[in-house]
Amino acid sequence: METQDEMFSSRSSKDCQERNAELCLENSVVQPLLTDLYQITMAYAYWKSGKVNDIASFDLYFRKNPFKGEFTIFSGLTDCLKFLENFHYSESDISYLKTVLPSNVEPEFFEFLHQLTPREVTVSALAEGSVCFPRIPLMTITGPLIIVQLLETTFLTLVNYSSLITTNAARFRIAAGKDIKLLEFGLRRAQGPDGGLSASRYAYIGGFDGTSNVLAGKLFGIPVRGTHAHAFVTSFTGLDELATRELVMAEPVENGDCDSAPPTKDFVTMCEDWRNQLGEDLSILASEAHDGEFAAFISYALAFPKQFIALIDTYDVTRSGILNFCAVAMALNDLGYKPQGIRIDSGDLAYLSCVVKEQFDRVAAKYDMEWFKDLVITASNDINEETILSLNEQGHKITAFGIGTHLVTCQRQPALGCVFKLVSVNNKPKIKLSQDVQKITMPGQKEAFRLYSSDGHALIDLLQRPGEEPPQVGKRVLCRHPFEESKRAYVMPHKVESMYKLVWAEGKMTEELPTISDIRQQVQMSLKTLRQDHKRSLNPTPYKVGVSDDLYHFIHDLWLENAPIGELS
Amino acid sequence: METQDEMFSSRSSKDCQERNAELCLENSVVQPLLTDLYQITMAYAYWKSGKVNDIASFDLYFRKNPFKGEFTIFSGLTDCLKFLENFHYSESDISYLKTVLPSNVEPEFFEFLHQLTPREVTVSALAEGSVCFPRIPLMTITGPLIIVQLLETTFLTLVNYSSLITTNAARFRIAAGKDIKLLEFGLRRAQGPDGGLSASRYAYIGGFDGTSNVLAGKLFGIPVRGTHAHAFVTSFTGLDELATRELVMAEPVENGDCDSAPPTKDFVTMCEDWRNQLGEDLSILASEAHDGEFAAFISYALAFPKQFIALIDTYDVTRSGILNFCAVAMALNDLGYKPQGIRIDSGDLAYLSCVVKEQFDRVAAKYDMEWFKDLVITASNDINEETILSLNEQGHKITAFGIGTHLVTCQRQPALGCVFKLVSVNNKPKIKLSQDVQKITMPGQKEAFRLYSSDGHALIDLLQRPGEEPPQVGKRVLCRHPFEESKRAYVMPHKVESMYKLVWAEGKMTEELPTISDIRQQVQMSLKTLRQDHKRSLNPTPYKVGVSDDLYHFIHDLWLENAPIGELS
Repeated sequence: METQDEMFSSRSSKDCQERNAELCLENSVVQPLLTDLYQITMAYAYWKSGKVNDIASFDLYFRKNPFKGEFTIFSGLTDCLKFLENFHYSESDISYLKTVLPSNVEPEFFEFLHQLTPREVTVSALAEGSVCFPRIPLMTITGPLIIVQLLETTFLTLVNYSSLITTNAARFRIAAGKDIKLLEFGLRRAQGPDGGLSASRYAYIGGFDGTSNVLAGKLFGIPVRGTHAHAFVTSFTGLDELATRELVMAEPVENGDCDSAPPTKDFVTMCEDWRNQLGEDLSILASEAHDGEFAAFISYALAFPKQFIALIDTYDVTRSGILNFCAVAMALNDLGYKPQGIRIDSGDLAYLSCVVKEQFDRVAAKYDMEWFKDLVITASNDINEETILSLNEQGHKITAFGIGTHLVTCQRQPALGCVFKLVSVNNKPKIKLSQDVQKITMPGQKEAFRLYSSDGHALIDLLQRPGEEPPQVGKRVLCRHPFEESKRAYVMPHKVESMYKLVWAEGKMTEELPTISDIRQQVQMSLKTLRQDHKRSLNPTPYKVGVSDDLYHFIHDLWLENAPIGELS
Repeated sequence: METQDEMFSSRSSKDCQERNAELCLENSVVQPLLTDLYQITMAYAYWKSGKVNDIASFDLYFRKNPFKGEFTIFSGLTDCLKFLENFHYSESDISYLKTVLPSNVEPEFFEFLHQLTPREVTVSALAEGSVCFPRIPLMTITGPLIIVQLLETTFLTLVNYSSLITTNAARFRIAAGKDIKLLEFGLRRAQGPDGGLSASRYAYIGGFDGTSNVLAGKLFGIPVRGTHAHAFVTSFTGLDELATRELVMAEPVENGDCDSAPPTKDFVTMCEDWRNQLGEDLSILASEAHDGEFAAFISYALAFPKQFIALIDTYDVTRSGILNFCAVAMALNDLGYKPQGIRIDSGDLAYLSCVVKEQFDRVAAKYDMEWFKDLVITASNDINEETILSLNEQGHKITAFGIGTHLVTCQRQPALGCVFKLVSVNNKPKIKLSQDVQKITMPGQKEAFRLYSSDGHALIDLLQRPGEEPPQVGKRVLCRHPFEESKRAYVMPHKVESMYKLVWAEGKMTEELPTISDIRQQVQMSLKTLRQDHKRSLNPTPYKVGVSDDLYHFIHDLWLENAPIGELS
């Protein structure tokens, strides 16, 4: 995956133990008190009502795909499982709760909380990184009512944003295509420090190639990238500010026996000579190119001769930045270094990228240097999915995008509305009614199957009641819309996938956690099973989600049973 | 501030030392590596260029008020100062950076980083919690170029979201008016766990009365609030599930010498009797009211007789929830407890709140109980600023709002675009040009003054060059638009306020940090100085921001000096 056109990358994987310690640190706010107070007050009311041994099931799901799209990527499961592993109310938590709850709350309740563990909880879930759809639970959590209820807010917090940003990143990847580098630059605009860390992590999982966030690199092993900012360029006034003019020639790549150290050259003079020459070649007045910018590029090249990327829009891309860059790049080349490319952070990105590419091509042609055509052209500046699609239409020459605000804050829709709904207590199904039919819950425990067509594409996600016979390959199955009576279809699956896996039971994870790379791969594999029309940006086709005939009747019977009839007068 | 219509509140302030330890924990990700990689690569290039002793000034500011508004509240300063206090690259940070930077980076640079401290940095800033405006720096940071550059990303991360959410909360407060309770319920939809914590903290600072987030209560001493969820209601099926039917009478408030314990009553029967009676009074069929909901309310009242609030929309507000609530409320009253009120989380909130209030009034009139009119009516469910304004127009009877997603994710605009721009190096002013005039920086160090009118309202924020005479009360001063030549105005100030305070110098804070309550008060005080038309939601009047004549010419001279002229051909 790593190619030479990338900037810097983390080269070693960290010592595992140290990494875990740091993850622990990073997740220090993910603790049982990271919840809504009503979870605790409900726990007390349940406890007082003798519901300590009631067993409940909750579904965690969302009702609508984000970003006007027709798919979502599920993530955050790893964090939920780690939270379960560490679930415990500390002495200090209990002391605090005593100050918050009324004084007549019985002391035995606090003792009960202090002893509480998720040992009797089971969690089934989709594979992390899978595409998922409205109403099909991402996770179902079963166990003592009180403890499962206490998990609600934290689970939602951990799944909602993770899934949102992963989905957003995956959409950027689809818009950009597979050959463009995507870099996450959003830390400064993220919703809080940890918002930034989560963004870096899940953008990578969703299909980005790296992040600018150093701590994310350190904590999660994500490749980190970066060069310099406008401030670096403006901090220089002219060539006299350079502390050194010398650069040593690159070590030859061949394994020659060099007895002598490589020679050192007057790099600044070489750059100046190239600027005069290239000014003529590229029809740019060398005298108008900014000397401070030139000094900044030379300074950066002196520090990073093997990774030279320049931000060329501080003063004027076409009249200053491009010329200064090409001059330094050619001088580096003379010394045996291969420059990497440029970044543009303002202006008309399609137009400027084409101008830059044209100049690169002129240099390549004039000096017979093919590689100059392949220099990286990175674009940043408030880029969103639509910008990329529009740039695609205009025919840009950008090879990498740096994306910040729109990616990390999910500006188009900054929250995914996952909910956590009670569906049964002691095996009795529960329903929550609403005037808004979208908000009616799907009662009872359920199984979910993904049915595939003969060409390998996913056709429909089907919910059934637990006792029903699973759908079978080659056997017609009736799938119904959960609420609209007339919407029905027969489906003949060529492959049937049982969607849930038991991930937590008997107080521990049932298997080893996937790595960040595993989940990242899962995203792309899972997206491949979706038809293109579900994934397109404009008016995508809704993916079908259905219920079995049995489940349909079950839901509707329970609905009528629970809805008051009322009386008009 | 605390009134009886509130739900639960934190009653004790925490032991200070423990609090600090926890804050430390909470902020564990706020460390020098929480930055963009290019800050580190730039640091190395500066270091290689011999710029170790260069002294630079950076301005932290934004270009546009959020939410289509005309004001912003500055916050996050406390976090920046705490970050400075702890600024240090650990051994582990250095080891990691060695894996990320190219192998030819000189080892002395890592030693330099390891020793780096912000001892020589000075920070001037507006008071945290003040209203602020585009282009007027919120903070100016001066010190060795390398270290100040290294602060950029972290400072932006700490200021951007804090200021955004504080501003958002303040706007909700303005929309709701001062008499409505505002509660932050957003944790589950926040952008990550810490996004949720920051939201709770800054929503409180911006004018909210409390949060549902228990950890925010514990860490920041914010009042926490909460009752129960729909799941609590649906978990009950009927009265036979209640473990106990008995409730002890409230202790009389008078200081009587009661020798005997207060008597215990059959609370469930009392509730049933009241439901039959009130069904007739309120023209609701008692037989149609949901028994599971009734049991849930009774169970909650048994647990929290002094803080009874019921969520009444699980099945049907007007045909079930309201009757079940009133029945339990009256039974509680019979036993000497004062119920608090209801919450509605779906449907037409204006209509339902009026229906509920009407029924409360009927009960109050029929049984001559004035207090029944004053029960809390809390509304939640996807509420944003426009919803509140629209509800105001319709004439609702809501007394408290629970606000989640729109508040914490700032859905209307999820990022504030604060930037951190170099304005001088070694006292030489620096400018960054752009084809977009809005993106041109204001070069050099500057002073800022807020000029007030005779009625105490802020008129204009004026930037000057440091040497200029400050504006004086009663003396006409020429204020100019920074970029549009013809926009000028004379201002006669009745009060002049120097806006910046030195907050960090000589390696430490210059004064004690304000408490969260101090900052919260500052928000309201500062907002009071703004004219109403700047604060209104629809088409607010822009607040004026100007530069002195001197600064105007200074900017424009430098602009021309740095912009290449080019040649048309």
